[in-house]
Amino acid sequence: MAETVKGLIRNLDNVSAAPVDIAGVKGVRMAVMIGREHQAPNFSMRQFIVEPGGHSPRHSHDYEHEVVITSGGGTVLLNGKEQPIRSGDVVFVPADHEHQFRAGEAGLKFLCFVPVTRNCGDPTPGS
Amino acid sequence: MAETVKGLIRNLDNVSAAPVDIAGVKGVRMAVMIGREHQAPNFSMRQFIVEPGGHSPRHSHDYEHEVVITSGGGTVLLNGKEQPIRSGDVVFVPADHEHQFRAGEAGLKFLCFVPVTRNCGDPTPGS
Repeated sequence: MAETVKGLIRNLDNVSAAPVDIAGVKGVRMAVMIGREHQAPNFSMRQFIVEPGGHSPRHSHDYEHEVVITSGGGTVLLNGKEQPIRSGDVVFVPADHEHQFRAGEAGLKFLCFVPVTRNCGDPTPGS
Repeated sequence: MAETVKGLIRNLDNVSAAPVDIAGVKGVRMAVMIGREHQAPNFSMRQFIVEPGGHSPRHSHDYEHEVVITSGGGTVLLNGKEQPIRSGDVVFVPADHEHQFRAGEAGLKFLCFVPVTRNCGDPTPGS
C-alpha cells in the first residue's frame, strides 16, 4: 500500500542545491523543491541557481517548461531570439522549442516546472 | 491541424486579475499566467492576489496544488493545522488534503499550479 502523502512547506533559501553537470551547462545548481520524491503525481518544481555569466544548455526536448524568475535577471532564448528576463517574469517554453537561460551580472534564480513523466511513463530528467 | 504553440513571456505585475467569486472566498483575485488558453498541455500556472485579511476557501479536491509564495505572507491550513507562510515558501498540497490560504496584514500573493485536467479529461477549474 502506498505511503500516505504529506503536505509540505519549504523555503527557496533553505535548500541544498547540487551542481548540474551536463554538457552545455555553466555555473548552474539545482534543487528539486517538489517532485517525485515527495510523491508529486503530475509535475515537478525545480529551483535553478545560475552564477553571473552562467547558462543552461541550448537544447529542446519533448516536454514543456513553465518557468518563474524569482531573483536576478538575464536572457532567455525563446521563439528564435534572445529576450531579456527579470524577477517576476514567467516563461512558457512549449515542447520541442529550442531554449537557453543565461544569467546577467546579478546572477539568475528561477523555478522550472516539468511533467514528472514523459513518453508515456518514463521519468522526466530532474523531476 | 493544431495552431502552432508559441513561447510566452509575461510579468506577474503586468496582468489583469479578476475577482474570484465562489463560496468561502474573501478578497481574492486571480490571473491565469500560463494555462489551457496558451495550449499548456499538462499544468496551469495561476496567480492569486489576496487582500489583507482575505482568504481562499477551506476545501479539498481530487487534484494537487503546487504553490509559490511570491509576496507578503499569512497562513496556510495544511496537514490539519494553521502554519505561517512567507515570500519564498513553496507549498505542496496533495490531492484530497483540506487546505486554506489566508493573507496577513501585508496581503499575500502566490502562484498556484494545478493539472489542466482531472478525472481523466475534465478541465480543472481555473486552469
